[in-house]
Formats: sequence, structure tokens, C-alpha cells
Amino acid sequence: MWEMYLRLKFFFMRNVLLIGAGRSSSYLIQYLLDHAGEGQWTLTVADVSEQNAKEKINGHPSGKPLRFDIQDESLLKSEVKNADLVISMLPAHMHLPVAQECVHQKKNLVTASYVTKEMHELDAEAKANGIIILNECGLDPGIDHMSAMKIIHELQEKGASLDYFKSFTGGLVAPESNDNPWGYKFSWNPRNVILAGQGTAKYIEDGKYKYIPYNRLFSQVETIQVDGQGSFDGYANRDSLAYRKIYGLNSIPTLLRGTLRQQGFCEKWNVFVQLGLTDDSYLIEDSEHLTYGSWIESYLPKTVQGTDLKLRVAKFMNLVPDHPVMRDIEWTGIFEDRPIRLKNASPAQILQQLLEEKWKLNNSDKDMIVMQHLFGYTLGAKKFQHTSSLVVKGENSVFTAMARTVGLPVAIAARFILNGEIKMNGVQVPVHKEIYQPVLRELSRLGIEFNEKTKELI
Amino acid sequence: MWEMYLRLKFFFMRNVLLIGAGRSSSYLIQYLLDHAGEGQWTLTVADVSEQNAKEKINGHPSGKPLRFDIQDESLLKSEVKNADLVISMLPAHMHLPVAQECVHQKKNLVTASYVTKEMHELDAEAKANGIIILNECGLDPGIDHMSAMKIIHELQEKGASLDYFKSFTGGLVAPESNDNPWGYKFSWNPRNVILAGQGTAKYIEDGKYKYIPYNRLFSQVETIQVDGQGSFDGYANRDSLAYRKIYGLNSIPTLLRGTLRQQGFCEKWNVFVQLGLTDDSYLIEDSEHLTYGSWIESYLPKTVQGTDLKLRVAKFMNLVPDHPVMRDIEWTGIFEDRPIRLKNASPAQILQQLLEEKWKLNNSDKDMIVMQHLFGYTLGAKKFQHTSSLVVKGENSVFTAMARTVGLPVAIAARFILNGEIKMNGVQVPVHKEIYQPVLRELSRLGIEFNEKTKELI
Repeated sequence: MWEMYLRLKFFFMRNVLLIGAGRSSSYLIQYLLDHAGEGQWTLTVADVSEQNAKEKINGHPSGKPLRFDIQDESLLKSEVKNADLVISMLPAHMHLPVAQECVHQKKNLVTASYVTKEMHELDAEAKANGIIILNECGLDPGIDHMSAMKIIHELQEKGASLDYFKSFTGGLVAPESNDNPWGYKFSWNPRNVILAGQGTAKYIEDGKYKYIPYNRLFSQVETIQVDGQGSFDGYANRDSLAYRKIYGLNSIPTLLRGTLRQQGFCEKWNVFVQLGLTDDSYLIEDSEHLTYGSWIESYLPKTVQGTDLKLRVAKFMNLVPDHPVMRDIEWTGIFEDRPIRLKNASPAQILQQLLEEKWKLNNSDKDMIVMQHLFGYTLGAKKFQHTSSLVVKGENSVFTAMARTVGLPVAIAARFILNGEIKMNGVQVPVHKEIYQPVLRELSRLGIEFNEKTKELI
Repeated sequence: MWEMYLRLKFFFMRNVLLIGAGRSSSYLIQYLLDHAGEGQWTLTVADVSEQNAKEKINGHPSGKPLRFDIQDESLLKSEVKNADLVISMLPAHMHLPVAQECVHQKKNLVTASYVTKEMHELDAEAKANGIIILNECGLDPGIDHMSAMKIIHELQEKGASLDYFKSFTGGLVAPESNDNPWGYKFSWNPRNVILAGQGTAKYIEDGKYKYIPYNRLFSQVETIQVDGQGSFDGYANRDSLAYRKIYGLNSIPTLLRGTLRQQGFCEKWNVFVQLGLTDDSYLIEDSEHLTYGSWIESYLPKTVQGTDLKLRVAKFMNLVPDHPVMRDIEWTGIFEDRPIRLKNASPAQILQQLLEEKWKLNNSDKDMIVMQHLFGYTLGAKKFQHTSSLVVKGENSVFTAMARTVGLPVAIAARFILNGEIKMNGVQVPVHKEIYQPVLRELSRLGIEFNEKTKELI
């Protein structure tokens, strides 16, 4: 009888299809299973590893694990057919076939990734078919859009004019788990951390375009204060200019988006950048036979002579040899005569291998997300600054703040699409009140809440 | 009767097909026409502009102008069929279809461009068909290979062991036409000059691999002395390591290839590089509405405050404001509030537009090619340095040293292939005695001759 009931339940109830149950899916799955009863849905967790999907569902009766291969078109077709809403947590470049299938079969889709040009081209068809393709609904992009647009709309509604908008986000390690001198551990894709910022940062300041080439990025840092958390380094993201259009701030004089690191991190990271160690565009000759120390030697110009590698790098950077920066560079082991052993590796790959040993998030480590928006505005004859700050800590290396802040907005948006609170159609990002209001309200109920402060600027 | 004779002549004589009659073809055409009688050939000059081909032939009875379109496959087929040897002076990426046609129709081919992977794949078929595809037979690559291999082979034959090989080439302006403070004018593709060195320079020194990222390239300069010409800046080319294999110097401890500029040029060019002005990877917002001065503003960090743009750039570069480097930067007009007017332009395109005004090779200007090889070797118990230096000056802005040194080796090699002195088959570069000996001998007869000097190192 029970089995019969379960079968009927799976037949009559709505079905949410989650594709990809990686690092950022733990809270997402938990939230959707927690609300399965209320929402009358089941959750199919489709992953390359059925075992992984099973573990994530953890025996919940509304969850159904599924071995999934994105190359299997007929499986994708049939699973999308069985679903009322699809969530894709696949790597960003793999969303498109899922989105195309969703549009054809008139099924809603939520992702946490940036809207690509190809994704945007589905807009008209999505609208015609009466479905939403909601993207950029994680942390950054996601919570950043929603929390910023809430304040921007509020300020616009009371007649304020915006003078500047600066926004910084960082995926960091919580102070209680910070046991290394860099104040950093990998809580997400290490490769992206190594390559972060490559290209040229573009923003606008006092009505003038500003450009920062990569080799100066980590020496042109702003200091960002967050109540209760102290000071952070903020460096500019690659493209802030696009946000003028996305946020409807076409004539704002100053707009800058950036990334947060513990204070002092950027000055140290800059040593790697200046040496050339973050480059991913060529391979190091004989990399498998070199030691880290001899590899670093390859980057030093003849002008910094001497025998001690650390002293020579200090001289190269114009630092005194006992400078704290040099101490923390040495801590990484980069001067050691230890074999690299990586074959055909780029500089960035060698640096990543070294730092993955040193910056590992251990099982009991807590990560931390910090976000801060600074809104400068004029109201009447007075000038104000409004500050929105968010600090979220993880529980351990699986239930991370990163997984929580990326996964929950996706899950919440999915829930509100299913229950009809979010009715928009087309290819969207969560800059609309109809989307961000219910999602932020629910996030706040779950403890993901911004600290809001306004002060007059004199 | 005369016309009949000419028709018969074109029917019975051998025919050389030159495709592309651009900047580097003036001496090439002249040389092949001068030797048409002796060699019993006619020269078909095929160019997109028949008028240009006509002008280059200048009424010579052995020359035949032809309007040519590389897209026209049947024309390519029929012209290759009519030819005994083909010379392609097309842009490097356009050689391949010509080479394929030559291999199929068993016709010899000469180019001045680097051998690509695709070109190299034709080797077996070229050998089977008994023809030569001779590439890299201009100046650099070309004369550099030939003159270096001559000395390398001579040293090896007398039992010397090579300790180092450094080689520098520069396309410069002759002292008598040097009327600007940079000592530089564009004698070849300006875009390539602006982008020169981007990426990471790789070489080997004392048995250790060395890497110079682009942002340090112009501050890690060697001083190169050339008898009678004074001192030059030498900066490292992108890939010196490949030359170990090409020159058969697999175990040489030091190998560096580089580019020459007038002394002081690199320190000034480095200002552009440090600001970020040579980047070609993104477009400047609203570039058509900016002035050069306001564009430069976009690159200055907040830390260099003040109102005077020149003073701020000086501060940014850690130079005193009246430093000669700043004077020569100012001379380019880069601080002026003059409109850029270029739409959707990259930084590199804007810089190129500015410098093309300032660094124009005027009609009567003479350019100058400088090349220097430094061979360090041990013979018996003694160490020596052999220096090979070449200085070639142009006549004017059409008959340039660049056209002479690029075009003549191509023409000479073509002549010696036709008269049977060069008998090699396959895809080749001129590192073989059979090729470089007759070509260097003829170049020397034409005044392109190296100054050779050996000194003992104590």
C-alpha cells in the first residue's frame, strides 16, 4: 500500500528537476526537500554520480536520485518532460542545451550563472511560451543584484539621486578557522581564484571611464570596512560598466564592483602577479623536472643578484628582506627546492598546485561570505551614504557559506515560481521587485540578512 | 614580328610567378628582372592592383603584370600551372593555399614567412614530388638564419663548443633621417610595432630557463654595441627556445633572440606599456568622443593626484617631471586635448593612430636595418666571442632597407633554385649550407655583408 502511495505521489505531484549536485547544492536540496510537503512537489536530483545524488537527498522521501549524463539528449528530453521546473547547477557553459529544452517544452528554469548572449536569445521564445528562465540567482551574481536593487529602488522612490554605487563581495575563511597568514582558503574553484582579475578592469568614476590593467590591479586596492569584521582589501572586478544598464543606472557618475580579500592579501598576491606566476597562457619547459625554487629563479631579472632566493625576490619587489609580505610569500613554500612534478604545466597550474596544499579548507573549517554595497546619494540639499553589509558564515567544509548563499536564492526563487508568487516570463535576472522582494524576505527569515546603515556625509 | 617574338618568348621561356607586390617587393622584382636574360625566365607580377604590378615592373620587357585575386581558385591553379617557380609575398596567413597548389602541381615555392604547422605538414608530399617549399627566406626570419648558421657551422667544424648565442635585429631609421626624439619611424606594419613583445618572452641563460612577462619586457633591456652605429636597446623576443632545435643547438647553455631599438627607446615605450596603452584585447568606451588627454586620465590611479596630466604621469612612473623620458612622451601629443575621433577602438589602435602621425617615414627618409649575432665559444682552453654585425640603409621610403633585406634573399634563392644550385626538396628553412652559402655570397656581392670580428675573452 505504501509503495502504491509513493508511486501515485510521484505520478500526481509536481516535480522539480535539479541537474548537477555539486559543491553548491547541499542547502539548495535541503531547502527544496523541506518545502516539498507544503509545495506538493518531489525533487529529482540528477547528477553524474547517483551515489552523490543519494547522499545529498539523505533518505528524504520526496527526493529521487538519478544518474544523469548531459550528453544523453533523450534522457534530458524525458526528464525535462517529467518536470514542472528545472534548476541547472551545471558548470556555466553547459546550461544552454538545458535552457533550449526547457523553452521548447515550456518548463521554467533557474540557474545561478551569468546570462550569456546565446541564453539571452531565448528571451522572445520563453516569453511566447509563458515561462521564465531566471539566471544570476545565486550569490554573486544573485544576492548582490537583489540587495542592491532593493536599495536603489527605495532611493529612487523617495526622489534621491545616486552619486555613486560601489559593491564588493568576497568568499573568505571565517576568523575562527583562519589559521594561515594569508587569511585565505579555497572555498570554491581554486583555478578561478588563481586567474581572478586577468584582463583589464573597467569602471566609471566621477563621470570618467577608468581602466586598470591586470599587472596593477592588486596594487590599486580600496579599503572596505565591515562592522564587526574589520577591514578588507577591495580590488576592481573586470567589468563594472555593464552594470549601468543592468541596474538602470545609465547616468550614475561612479560605479565600481569589486572583490574582497583579507586586508594585506592583495599586496602579497601582487608578488605572484609581478613575478608572472598567475599566467595560464603558456607552458613551463621541463616543468616536471623543476623545483618550486628553480621555477621562481626563471622569473628574476639579472639586476637582482645574489644567492638567496628570498632576498632576491624581496629586492625585485623593492621590499626589505624581513618585510611581512616576504615572510608570508615564504610560508607558501614557493622558495623551496621541492620538486613540482607537474608535467606540461602553465605557471598558473603550478601555483595552484602549491596553494591547494596550503589553502585547503579542512573538514571542520568555516568559510565566510562578505558583501558590502556603498550607495552615495543626494536628497534635497544633503548628501548621504547608505551601506548594506552582509556576513554569512559556513558550518563546515560541506555546508559552506558559499553553498548556502549560492544555493538558497536559487531554491527560494524556484519555490516562488512554483507557488505562483513570481509570475514574470522571459530570460530574466533578479533585478525586479517581483523577484527580489519575496526572495530577500525568505533569505532574511533564514538568517541571510543585510545590515543597513545610513549616514549623512558632511 | 616583334610581337610574335614576345609571344613565343613567353611561351618557351621559364616563368616565375610572384604573388603579392607590396612594400617588400621592389628590390625582389628588380633583381629577378635584372637576371631574366641570364636565367631565361619571365616574371609574372600578380597583385590585387594590376596598376601597382605595372609600376613595379616599370616597363621591363621580361615582366608581365597580372591582376590577381587569391580567392579565385581557378586563376591560382592556371597561374601556378604556367609557372616554374612561385614566390608568395602575401600576408603570412595566406600562403597555405598557394603552397598546397604548388605541391600538387610540383612547382617550387619561396616565401619570407615562418613555417606554420600546416605548412610543415606538406613536407612529405613536397619531397615525394621533388620540389622545395623554402620559407623564412627574408630578413628576420631569413638573413638571421643564414648568417648565424654560417658561423655556427664554421665554429663546429673547427671543434669549438658554443657557450652562448645571442642575436638581435631591428628595423630602424637611419641616423641621417632621424629627426625625432624617439629615433624611430615606421618602416613596416605599424600594428605589429605597437603589439610587439606581447605574451611572455622565453629564453635560456646559463642552462636555466628564463621568462619575462610583457609588463617587464621593456625594463629588462640589454645594451648592444654596433661598430660605427653606437649603442642600441635589445629586448627579448617572445620565443628563443624554439631556435635550439632549428639551429641544432640543443645543449647550448644560453640562447637569446631579441629586437633592437635606438638606445633609450625602451624606457620611453615602457611608459605606454605600464599605462596599458598597447592593449588590443578590449575597446575603449566612447573612444570617438574622448581626447588623447582624457583617455590617458582613464589609466591613472587615484594615488597620483594633481591637475597637470604630464606631472601625474611622471609621478606614476616615478620620474621627475622634467625627465627626458617625459619630454619625449609629451612630444607624441598623448597629453593633448585633441579629439581621438576613432570609433570602437582598442587602446593599441588609438596609440597606433597617434604614432602614425609622428613616426611617418617621409618620402626621402632612409630606414636602416641593424642585425647583430654574438657567439661565445670555447676552443681548446680559451674562450672567445665572435660578433657578426650587419647594417643596411635604405634609399628612400619605397626602396627601403627593409624591402632590400626581405626581398633580395627571396629573389636570390629563387634564382638559385631555378639554375639548379639549390637542389634540396621538402619544406625547408635556410639553415643548410646548400642554401645559405650561395645566397650569402650573392647578398655580399650586392653590399649586404656582415662585419665579422673575433676576440678572446679574458
